[in-house]
Amino acid sequence: MNTDMSEKLAPMRWDGKDLYLLDQRILPHREEWVRVGNAQDCHKAIYDMVVRGAPCIGFSGLWGVVLWLKENKGKGGAALSEAASFLKTARPTAVNLAYEIDELLSYLQAQSQTDNYFEVAEEYTQKRIALAEEQNLAMAKWGIKAIEEDLGKGADLRLMTHCNTGFLACGTIGTALGVISLAAEQSRVKSVWVDETRPYMQGIRLTAYELAKQDIAHKVVVEGAASHLMKNGLVDAILVGADRIVANGDTANKVGTSTLAIVAKHYGVPFYVVAPSSSFDLKTEQGSGIEIELRNEEEILSFKGDRVAPRESSAFNPSFDVTDSSLITGIICEKGIIRPDYVKNIKGLLS
Amino acid sequence: MNTDMSEKLAPMRWDGKDLYLLDQRILPHREEWVRVGNAQDCHKAIYDMVVRGAPCIGFSGLWGVVLWLKENKGKGGAALSEAASFLKTARPTAVNLAYEIDELLSYLQAQSQTDNYFEVAEEYTQKRIALAEEQNLAMAKWGIKAIEEDLGKGADLRLMTHCNTGFLACGTIGTALGVISLAAEQSRVKSVWVDETRPYMQGIRLTAYELAKQDIAHKVVVEGAASHLMKNGLVDAILVGADRIVANGDTANKVGTSTLAIVAKHYGVPFYVVAPSSSFDLKTEQGSGIEIELRNEEEILSFKGDRVAPRESSAFNPSFDVTDSSLITGIICEKGIIRPDYVKNIKGLLS
Repeated sequence: MNTDMSEKLAPMRWDGKDLYLLDQRILPHREEWVRVGNAQDCHKAIYDMVVRGAPCIGFSGLWGVVLWLKENKGKGGAALSEAASFLKTARPTAVNLAYEIDELLSYLQAQSQTDNYFEVAEEYTQKRIALAEEQNLAMAKWGIKAIEEDLGKGADLRLMTHCNTGFLACGTIGTALGVISLAAEQSRVKSVWVDETRPYMQGIRLTAYELAKQDIAHKVVVEGAASHLMKNGLVDAILVGADRIVANGDTANKVGTSTLAIVAKHYGVPFYVVAPSSSFDLKTEQGSGIEIELRNEEEILSFKGDRVAPRESSAFNPSFDVTDSSLITGIICEKGIIRPDYVKNIKGLLS
Repeated sequence: MNTDMSEKLAPMRWDGKDLYLLDQRILPHREEWVRVGNAQDCHKAIYDMVVRGAPCIGFSGLWGVVLWLKENKGKGGAALSEAASFLKTARPTAVNLAYEIDELLSYLQAQSQTDNYFEVAEEYTQKRIALAEEQNLAMAKWGIKAIEEDLGKGADLRLMTHCNTGFLACGTIGTALGVISLAAEQSRVKSVWVDETRPYMQGIRLTAYELAKQDIAHKVVVEGAASHLMKNGLVDAILVGADRIVANGDTANKVGTSTLAIVAKHYGVPFYVVAPSSSFDLKTEQGSGIEIELRNEEEILSFKGDRVAPRESSAFNPSFDVTDSSLITGIICEKGIIRPDYVKNIKGLLS
C-alpha cells in the first residue's frame, strides 16, 4: 500500500475547525469536498450519503460530536447526550454510528471536567481513526490466511466483492477490499469481479474507482450474473463487509449480500465477512433482531433524476439484508478468523 | 384480458407492405413505432433490441423473411436460405428466431411453386401469431393450475417475475406474465414483485409498464433484494420465461434467472418456467451446450450514454444464464405442466 497515495485518497479531512468530506455521491467522475461545520450539517451529510460505509459513518459521527462541542464549549450532560442521540438517527442500521458515539461519550464522561471536552474529543477521534488503520491491516492479513486455509492456494485469485469496503468506506485500506488490496500488493490477485450494487451503485462507482486507483485488474458485472460466474468456475472466493454482525454470526450488510451468499453456498465458493470488532453487536442474538432501513423508492425508480419506471409504479427499497451465518465460511476481524460454531467462537475471540 | 386493449398494445403491426415495431428501447415514457421495410432493417431492429422477448424475436424473424420475399418476389432456393441464415444471426441465444424461420422455410419448400411465396409467407406468419395467442392463454391456465397444486391455494398470491414476458415480448398476453395477468383477471393476485433486470432494465421499464397498463398492483425491487423478500415470506411463487429449454430441462433465460432460482430453492419458493413448445431445443442434451450471448460492456458501464463506471474499468456482460433443471419446480407450456423427471417428461409431453 502506497501510504502517500492513501493519504491523498482519504475520504475525510479535519482542519482543526471543520470536517471536509469527499462527496461520494458524485464519484468516480468528480472529486469534490463538502465542508461540514456543525453537528446538524454532519447529520445531514451522513443521511444524504455524502459519506458512507459503516466505519466512515462511525468516524463521521465522532466528528459530529466534536463539531457540536466546538459550538458548545464546556457543555456536557443532557445537552451532549441529546446531540449524540440526534447524530445516531442519521443511519439506523449501521451499528458503528451508535457504537462509536457511545464509546466517545463514555470516554468523555470519565474525564474530571467538561472544560476541554472539545480538545479531548478531537484527540480521541484522531487516535480512533489511526487505530482503524492498524486494524484494517491486521484484517487484511487474516483474510489472506483464511483464503489460503480454504483454497489451499493464495495466488492467481479471482475474487469477488459486493458494495464498497475500501478506503472510501473505511478511511484506510478497508475491510473486504483491504484483503483484496493487500493480496494484490503481494501479487496474489488475478482479477476482481465487482458487482454494480444496485440501486446506489457503490460497486460500479466506488469499488471500481478504488481498484482503478490501485491498478488492480477488475471487471464490473450485474448482480444477476453471480450464478453465471460461479457456475462457470470463475470465482475463487467472495469477500464482503458488514454493517452489523450479531451474536450468532448473522450479518446485516448492503442489500444483495445475502442473495450472493446463497449463490456462493450453492456452488461451494467460500464466502467471507470482513469487519472490525466494532461492527459486532453481541446484545442482539440473531439476525431477526436487526432493524432494516427502508430508503426512498426514488433511488430505484429514477436514475439521476431521470424516471426509469412508469409513473404509475412504486418500489420497495430495503437498504440492507441479513445473511444467515450458515452461509458464511468465515468472519474476519482484526483479532483473527472466526469459524463456525459462531455463537461460541465470536464470544471466544471478542471477549 | 381486454381484447381491445391488447389490440392497441400490440408490439408489432403489419400493414401488408411494411412491419412497424413499437420501439421498446424508449418505453415506458415514449411510444414510438419504427418502420421496418426490408430484411436488412429487420435484422438491425432485432439486433438493436427495438423488439425483444423470445417469441417476438421469432415473429420478427418471420416478418423479416416476408420482407425479403416482398423485395425478391418469386425467388427461393439458395438466395432465400441465405437471407434466412442472415436473419438468424441477429440474436443467437433465442432459439425461437432460428426455429420459427426454419419452420417457415420448410413450409415454403413444401409449396409447389415459388411465385406466390410472399403471399404464402405473409398468411403463414399471421396464422402463426394467432396460434401463439391461443397457446399463451393455454399456458396461463396451466400455470394457475400448477400454483394451485403446489401452494394448495390460488388466491391472494404474491408473485415475482424477472425480465419481461408480457405482450411486449410475446405479442399477446405473454408467458410468465400471461399467467400473472390471467390470475389477476381472476382476482387471484395480491401483488407482483418486479425486479429491475439489469443491465437492460426490462423489468422496471417493460414489465412494470405492462402491469401498470393492466392495473395490476406491483412493486419494483433491485435484484439483490430477492433473498430479503423470500426470507421474510413475501413471495409465494416465481414465474419466468425462457429463451431456450433443452432436453433435460436446463433453461437459458435472461441473466439473473439462475441467481433467482437458487435463492428460491434455498427458501423453498416454487419456481416456474413458462414457455411455448417452440422454446424447447431437444437436440441439445444439457445446459452446457447452450451458447451464451455476450453483449456490449457499455450496457453496464454507462446509463443512457452517461458513464457510471470509472473510465479505466471494463465489464463482463453475459446476456443470459442457464438455470439448472434441478432448481425448477415445473415447466409450463401450452400442452401442460412438466414436472421432474424432466428428461422423460419433456419428451413425453412434446412428442
